[in-house]
Amino acid sequence: MSRAVVEPQQDRSRLTRERLLEAALASLAESGWARTTVATVAARAGVSRGAAQHHFPTHADLVTAAIRHMADVRLEEIRDAGRALPRPVRVRAVLDHLVRLYTGPLFTAALHVWTEAAVDDELRSRVIPLEQVLAREAYRVAVTLLGVDGDDPHVRGVVSATLDLARGLGLADVLTDDAGRRCRVLDAWAVQLERALGTPVG
Amino acid sequence: MSRAVVEPQQDRSRLTRERLLEAALASLAESGWARTTVATVAARAGVSRGAAQHHFPTHADLVTAAIRHMADVRLEEIRDAGRALPRPVRVRAVLDHLVRLYTGPLFTAALHVWTEAAVDDELRSRVIPLEQVLAREAYRVAVTLLGVDGDDPHVRGVVSATLDLARGLGLADVLTDDAGRRCRVLDAWAVQLERALGTPVG
Repeated sequence: MSRAVVEPQQDRSRLTRERLLEAALASLAESGWARTTVATVAARAGVSRGAAQHHFPTHADLVTAAIRHMADVRLEEIRDAGRALPRPVRVRAVLDHLVRLYTGPLFTAALHVWTEAAVDDELRSRVIPLEQVLAREAYRVAVTLLGVDGDDPHVRGVVSATLDLARGLGLADVLTDDAGRRCRVLDAWAVQLERALGTPVG
Repeated sequence: MSRAVVEPQQDRSRLTRERLLEAALASLAESGWARTTVATVAARAGVSRGAAQHHFPTHADLVTAAIRHMADVRLEEIRDAGRALPRPVRVRAVLDHLVRLYTGPLFTAALHVWTEAAVDDELRSRVIPLEQVLAREAYRVAVTLLGVDGDDPHVRGVVSATLDLARGLGLADVLTDDAGRRCRVLDAWAVQLERALGTPVG
């Protein structure tokens, strides 16, 4: 086959894969684990069930790939937003970006998958390495945006705590809109984090 | 009926109720939402299905009562432990007690119910007021143990952040044993919290 023939097929395949991943994430966030299957996601994406199963043979393949894909997209958005922050960077502004990793459809979808993994050994074996990769990447993004040395043990403690706080705020936001309270909590934490990291209060 | 007849019946009824609540919590933590029904919990507790349905007509009644009951037990344990802490109270020791609200079977069970409530409107209408009551009680316990003024807006910010952090740490502990990392994060947080509250580093 010539390149001219191969490339459009590869593009179509990549587009089909992305439509499935986006549909899977939306379905998980709106309807939860049990109502998100390869078949329902294929229908939602307007893709044949056979094509969906070609890309994602199992339910676990599909949902873990969907979370990985959307987390990668979100991490890239946050890196870009971080590069665009005015200097010197304000800790409070960085916190608003980091919280986006733990709120919205991505977090709700991941929560459904993580919770199911607590009672499904096969799914858990897929989710644990994914969670570890995402935790490392979130940490790297956080230290890059804050402009601090991620290998310093003191930095590691307070930045890890910041990401755990963001995860806890995300969980508090799943059932009710917690944005007002979250803003006050982040205001209070930004002051402490600036002191802890020795960065100026912006 | 004389009191002598009524009281043993009331005792039996109360004991049956408690056995059902404990079985429901254990079942949620081990098997998740879908495999925890009034029938499976009745069987686990050694109680007839009719008796179980007399106490808890619906699935939502049973699981919300189970979480309320176990949270009350845990809150009382933490209050007792707080009274027994050596003075002056060390913030780090208080954090270890507060984290117990967000780890173990109680947290895992609540996570299954909260996650299901994200996609079940009727359950959500039951869970939101319960979550609000438990959040207020956790806050009261935290300020009591820390010996600080819970009405002070600055205290509210940093103590709320502490409980959100504890919730985030709880979520990180559901799939893997995160106790070692959690300990280091709490060490770092304790130093910041002591500074923020103006309490001595113990």
